[in-house]
Amino acid sequence: MSAGTVHGVGLGPGDPELMSVRADRLIRNAKNIAFFRKAGRAGRARKIVDGMLHGSAREIPMEYPVTTEIPLSDPRYNEILSQFYQTVTGQLRDIAEAGEDVVVLCEGDPFFYGSFMHLYTRLRDHVPVEVVPAITGMSAAWTATGSPITWGDDVMTVLMGTLPEAELVRGMLNADALVVMKVGRNLPRIRAALDKAGKLDRAYYVEYASMAEERAMPLAQADLDAAPYFSIVVVHGQGRRP
Amino acid sequence: MSAGTVHGVGLGPGDPELMSVRADRLIRNAKNIAFFRKAGRAGRARKIVDGMLHGSAREIPMEYPVTTEIPLSDPRYNEILSQFYQTVTGQLRDIAEAGEDVVVLCEGDPFFYGSFMHLYTRLRDHVPVEVVPAITGMSAAWTATGSPITWGDDVMTVLMGTLPEAELVRGMLNADALVVMKVGRNLPRIRAALDKAGKLDRAYYVEYASMAEERAMPLAQADLDAAPYFSIVVVHGQGRRP
Ligand SMILES: C[S@@+](CC[C@H](N)C(=O)[O-])C[C@H]1O[C@@H](n2cnc3c(N)ncnc32)[C@H](O)[C@@H]1O
Ligand SMILES: C[S@@+](CC[C@H](N)C(=O)[O-])C[C@H]1O[C@@H](n2cnc3c(N)ncnc32)[C@H](O)[C@@H]1O
Repeated sequence: MSAGTVHGVGLGPGDPELMSVRADRLIRNAKNIAFFRKAGRAGRARKIVDGMLHGSAREIPMEYPVTTEIPLSDPRYNEILSQFYQTVTGQLRDIAEAGEDVVVLCEGDPFFYGSFMHLYTRLRDHVPVEVVPAITGMSAAWTATGSPITWGDDVMTVLMGTLPEAELVRGMLNADALVVMKVGRNLPRIRAALDKAGKLDRAYYVEYASMAEERAMPLAQADLDAAPYFSIVVVHGQGRRP
Repeated sequence: MSAGTVHGVGLGPGDPELMSVRADRLIRNAKNIAFFRKAGRAGRARKIVDGMLHGSAREIPMEYPVTTEIPLSDPRYNEILSQFYQTVTGQLRDIAEAGEDVVVLCEGDPFFYGSFMHLYTRLRDHVPVEVVPAITGMSAAWTATGSPITWGDDVMTVLMGTLPEAELVRGMLNADALVVMKVGRNLPRIRAALDKAGKLDRAYYVEYASMAEERAMPLAQADLDAAPYFSIVVVHGQGRRP
């Protein structure tokens, strides 16, 4: 018997119509569908495909361990996560080794700051793994602002809002166009860094890009304490344009 | 009579299956389809949608003026291009003002270093314009390398291969993960910059990502003088991974 394939399928930014034709087909035909979620939640990725799964599809929720009381710097944090990835990888491998394909739902593009990457590196030497790229959250975010992100020879940099302020400022100074992801409760620090880098007046804030709740506005108008997980800050480049 | 809409529709990296469900639908139903091409060529964007247009679709090729003899720095270069964008914008506006929709085909994501942006800024104050984001060429490129591009808090920077070597080196030193686009005949300079930045041994070269001719290899193995228009260099980030 030949092994099944694990498909890491990018869902795009959230609007089901922004899924690729290939992702749409793989999901509608999937016998086994795996997705990450927090314990007790429906799962964001799972919600995007609501109504697309066929009746007999087997759902495999992969529930993140609760690590809220352990600081990121504590070695136990990494151990617990690593153990979790090892366990779910085992489940997926069992399905593939039994000859069945399994679709793993991934938010945005799987290889761009995605959780699937942690499964991918643990699976690829054992069973066939295929990755379907997708529209990133940032593409939907700059589209929502109504202005192109980069022109001519603009340098674009992507920063994580979890970085210390000094590193944010440095990255902001070195680029023409900017994207800051993992915004959420980091927004006050991101705002301070933009101010120090002299880019605050050009910054846009976008939440839930391409989803029903999408909102885009100048960062100056955003509520600093209410940014959800799905939020992004962008600064548009100003390069050459004929 | 109400105006039609100009749809700037991202096609993604080249594989028609990587188009979004919305792009696929808009293109299959389009009455008017516009696309850029070089004089005498079929047009790369037009080729991606081969077999998707319905029989009575009107095709509107927008042929770039020949500027090969004028240096980029010559003010005439900008004037000629600007005149060209003005002319084709007029054509699209006429169609929309006559009440018909028109689909403009865009390679990759329209707002990410795309030509459509030059039409968009000239159209948006006059007729309704909608933009459909898409999978970028770089997402297909890093997927083709078989390794995720960014981990943890990695800083990612996108550089244009047309930049002077010193600016390439600076951008390369300031980032963990790198994407260099507009490679083509700039590859020798890009290679030299990667060498100076100490990142040459980790650089990958990808051409025709997601297309039938796709090839991915360590940059050290690439033919420096034969990089086509559709080629990208990537350096993967090495951030935290549990
Ligand atoms: C762990 S990263 C995953 C990125 C994803 N793989 C992608 O390609 O966009 C999660 C971050 O992506 C951003 N994000 C993804 N989709 C988004 C959307 N639709 N609207 C706003 N932000 C989004 C947010 O900043 C969020 O904190
Ligand atoms: C003018 S930019 C347009 C980028 C496009 N809007 C996008 O979102 O990818 C053209 C450059 O994109 C890169 N590119 C786009 N699609 C590609 C593909 N399928 N394979 C390799 N490179 C690609 C090449 O570096 C090319 O020189």
